[in-house]
Amino acid sequence: MNYPNGLKKELIKNKLEIKYANRGMSLEDDLNKTNEYYRQIDKAYIYKKPTPIKIVKVIFPQKKAKITEAYFDTPSTTDYNGIYKGKYIDFEAKETTSLTSFPLNNIHPHQIKHLEKIEKHNGIAFLIIRFTKKKETYLLLEKELKDFLENNTKKSIPISYFKEKAHLIKEKYSPRIDYLEILDNIGGINHDE
Amino acid sequence: MNYPNGLKKELIKNKLEIKYANRGMSLEDDLNKTNEYYRQIDKAYIYKKPTPIKIVKVIFPQKKAKITEAYFDTPSTTDYNGIYKGKYIDFEAKETTSLTSFPLNNIHPHQIKHLEKIEKHNGIAFLIIRFTKKKETYLLLEKELKDFLENNTKKSIPISYFKEKAHLIKEKYSPRIDYLEILDNIGGINHDE
Repeated sequence: MNYPNGLKKELIKNKLEIKYANRGMSLEDDLNKTNEYYRQIDKAYIYKKPTPIKIVKVIFPQKKAKITEAYFDTPSTTDYNGIYKGKYIDFEAKETTSLTSFPLNNIHPHQIKHLEKIEKHNGIAFLIIRFTKKKETYLLLEKELKDFLENNTKKSIPISYFKEKAHLIKEKYSPRIDYLEILDNIGGINHDE
Repeated sequence: MNYPNGLKKELIKNKLEIKYANRGMSLEDDLNKTNEYYRQIDKAYIYKKPTPIKIVKVIFPQKKAKITEAYFDTPSTTDYNGIYKGKYIDFEAKETTSLTSFPLNNIHPHQIKHLEKIEKHNGIAFLIIRFTKKKETYLLLEKELKDFLENNTKKSIPISYFKEKAHLIKEKYSPRIDYLEILDNIGGINHDE
């Protein structure tokens, strides 16, 4: 669990060296493009946080500092946050190749706790989960996640729960993953307007 | 300008290798402790974003991924953000050794623009600037920063401007840098209560 999203898959392909350039159109790519679009039209300022890295050694072969030893760190919070209509937005995004359910061990317990705190403090907290093989992406509000966790001992959330309680995000050309439209439609975001 | 806060100083001391462990009580340390305190008393959830790193090479000597080539990247936004009383909080923190003024080249132009966007979208945006040799730490709201930039061509903000327009943060034992107290005192934060 010490790898950022998307890295693990590539480990299998290439055990010796990973170039970070071309990972294909992952959920992360789609969200980055979507957030970039929101900024361009001055709608919202939401960013992915950098991957936390623990730096051990830095050298200076030329002017530019070169990191020669570092490791992936566990993130303290979720990956995405920002502002929309004066509200604090906070979410975690994950992909699964499962056809039937989302495995909860994909999310750290402290990330779930973090989302709960945000909701309690009047922020908008949720998960964006993509079932890659079904090509379906859902927005699950923190309160529905909490409800599931309180009433289930299962280690994964079945897709039927997403169909019933979450919101399917239709994929478009631009913005690709229009999750703010979902928030607008379900209400609760217009306090500050 | 490709180094994160505090690194440049250490370059001079040790050109070959930098251990990140003991940097002394910097403004960053004080803010991390302060934010940790706010979380402990369930007052606010504000975090420093990880330093952006561009990863070039990763190897797998054992199970754990080891980064063997990486570089410091330019941050897209400010270093700190989060939620307080339902409001989106966003700021950049910098130290200067100058006794007379804060050099504006310490802040990227896109970071200044980012703070302006946040303010426009009803977030709370500001700078926290410490004059290390004077042991004075100020909170300067984005609107006062903007006002200065619009009416001056100077490349640094004189300390007299901080004394007049910014808010001196008294350093305490815990929390060390109680910047939320300043926001409470100057108002504008209670919309959501």
